[in-house]
Amino acid sequence: MTKPVLIVGGGPAGLAAAHSLATVGKQSIIVEKEDKLGGAPILSGYAKLVPTGEWAKDAIGGMVTRVEGEDAVTILTNTKVTEFGGSPGDFQARLSNGDNAQVEAAILCSGFTHFDSVNKPEWGFGTFQDVVTTTQVEQMISSGQGVRCPSDSRKPKRVAILLCVGSRDRQIGREWCSKICCTVSSNLAMEIREELPDCHVYIYYMDIRTFGLNETKYYWRSQEEFKVKYIKARIAEVTSDGEKLIVKGEDTLVKRPITIPFDLVVHAIGMDPNVDNPEIASTFGVDLQEHGHIDAANCYGAMGQTTRAGVYVAGAAMGPETIDDSIAQGHAAAMAVLSGLKEAIGKTA
Amino acid sequence: MTKPVLIVGGGPAGLAAAHSLATVGKQSIIVEKEDKLGGAPILSGYAKLVPTGEWAKDAIGGMVTRVEGEDAVTILTNTKVTEFGGSPGDFQARLSNGDNAQVEAAILCSGFTHFDSVNKPEWGFGTFQDVVTTTQVEQMISSGQGVRCPSDSRKPKRVAILLCVGSRDRQIGREWCSKICCTVSSNLAMEIREELPDCHVYIYYMDIRTFGLNETKYYWRSQEEFKVKYIKARIAEVTSDGEKLIVKGEDTLVKRPITIPFDLVVHAIGMDPNVDNPEIASTFGVDLQEHGHIDAANCYGAMGQTTRAGVYVAGAAMGPETIDDSIAQGHAAAMAVLSGLKEAIGKTA
Repeated sequence: MTKPVLIVGGGPAGLAAAHSLATVGKQSIIVEKEDKLGGAPILSGYAKLVPTGEWAKDAIGGMVTRVEGEDAVTILTNTKVTEFGGSPGDFQARLSNGDNAQVEAAILCSGFTHFDSVNKPEWGFGTFQDVVTTTQVEQMISSGQGVRCPSDSRKPKRVAILLCVGSRDRQIGREWCSKICCTVSSNLAMEIREELPDCHVYIYYMDIRTFGLNETKYYWRSQEEFKVKYIKARIAEVTSDGEKLIVKGEDTLVKRPITIPFDLVVHAIGMDPNVDNPEIASTFGVDLQEHGHIDAANCYGAMGQTTRAGVYVAGAAMGPETIDDSIAQGHAAAMAVLSGLKEAIGKTA
Repeated sequence: MTKPVLIVGGGPAGLAAAHSLATVGKQSIIVEKEDKLGGAPILSGYAKLVPTGEWAKDAIGGMVTRVEGEDAVTILTNTKVTEFGGSPGDFQARLSNGDNAQVEAAILCSGFTHFDSVNKPEWGFGTFQDVVTTTQVEQMISSGQGVRCPSDSRKPKRVAILLCVGSRDRQIGREWCSKICCTVSSNLAMEIREELPDCHVYIYYMDIRTFGLNETKYYWRSQEEFKVKYIKARIAEVTSDGEKLIVKGEDTLVKRPITIPFDLVVHAIGMDPNVDNPEIASTFGVDLQEHGHIDAANCYGAMGQTTRAGVYVAGAAMGPETIDDSIAQGHAAAMAVLSGLKEAIGKTA
């Protein structure tokens, strides 16, 4: 009962899991490959979060500070797990810093990798300076710099946000939907309009997936209060006429070709499986799903159990996920660990 | 430290919360207004669940059985909370059975109410026997009866599933999206095709919101493996020619009116706020959101905290939610309760 739980990844899910365990007096070790905790919202410098509008540095930064202050949590940054053996209640982990750890269970909170827009070359990223990603716009906002065209720092007068970049796209091997980009893009569009009231913002979509209450808080509010325009379209390419970026494609509702000039084009980039997933799956002996996400064997009674007993998973490691549900799943996986240990102990006794 | 936690509602979120608390040795009282636990998946007789395909009676039924076997959980069915006063760590609840309970905190896991299709009369429910709801089709499947036309028990040859019935519909005061009906409908369509391979199944949609990995598991699989047809349309009315049901509307992609005969028309009914929410909000002194769902004041560090200290919320009580995320949120709220109590105790000491 004195061994800690190993948590792989210090993003929202991992922070939640560690906090849960600390709350009930259970030790944990967070192993984080980057040099600080917080995951994508902190490392990529997100601005205001869906669904509350709190700044990432406050909401997720606050979770980092709390976990850093917990005696029950050991934090190892710049570290990976290189070997993992044993059985539930008695695992041995070997770490990249040379240490070994005896742990009772592991929770994989290893998150995702942002889609790299250079893999969608016809949409202009890497070719034109003023084609950027949602992550870059988040950083422009969170840094206080404001939304500007990278080529000459001017305030854009016309912005196009292209949805599903690296999502729902079989041509480039990304068939899944990234779940939250529609809502995040609506949110960003409102933030752009708030800073630049004269700027026109267009969102080009296949289906608008502002599910649940996001429908009113983001989709309708962005249209009615912030005058963001939504166009159902298939985008063919992003080019330039030397002065403006030109978005070409087809408006699929009016069935007409479109050729429209913009100052700034934003790729709403999707969530790839973590590039390290094959390595993580091999180290921990867990299965991956068909697209490379970590497979959850149970979503109900033992939430987040993987295909290996004693190893659990939470958050975007399992597939595209929202921040708040990643946090919920982190807590849930921590509880599944404790519940599993209790049952295992019961059986031994 | 000896007072229990009050859990309002014994559906997936409430079962998860109670199990979490029991796992760490904390007492809870589940107060359930219906005569048994399990919430919508059990009380409404759902069939195979998204996303694992497990039967509701196994997945959620198993959670019920586990909680019923926990010494730390007191279960009161056919019971409501009528009064709730006091402060965090020392609340007094009065119950409809005449009992009083001293509790440390409360978690509202009070779920939702299925949209009643009679409130969308132009779509034929209540007028034509063979216009049914997704819940009724779930029951046809889970009971083993099979999918049949209620009017004469024949096997339907053509089935239309209409999405967004009671969702995304300002005309009837339901502006929100019900989040999971698209995916549930894709799942049901595959189940219908599995039982009745000669039956043609059409899904009429506004936007297809099979978010995340549901995109491949449901949207594409239902089309490619099960030959389910998806039509983007605005439905005007469902009538009858005396023999068949007639679905009338507009195909919004080809911009043409449609008038199509079906044997069975299925309303994919949405999730209304629980009809008891005004009463629950008043009893517990918590705020409701603009559409009548219980307001969550914190989605990150203290997940599920409501606007009243010591009172938490999880699952579909907060808005349309999936079963698995309701479960995750139930665990998360339980942890937020324990964390809150620990901090409160720290402050007192």
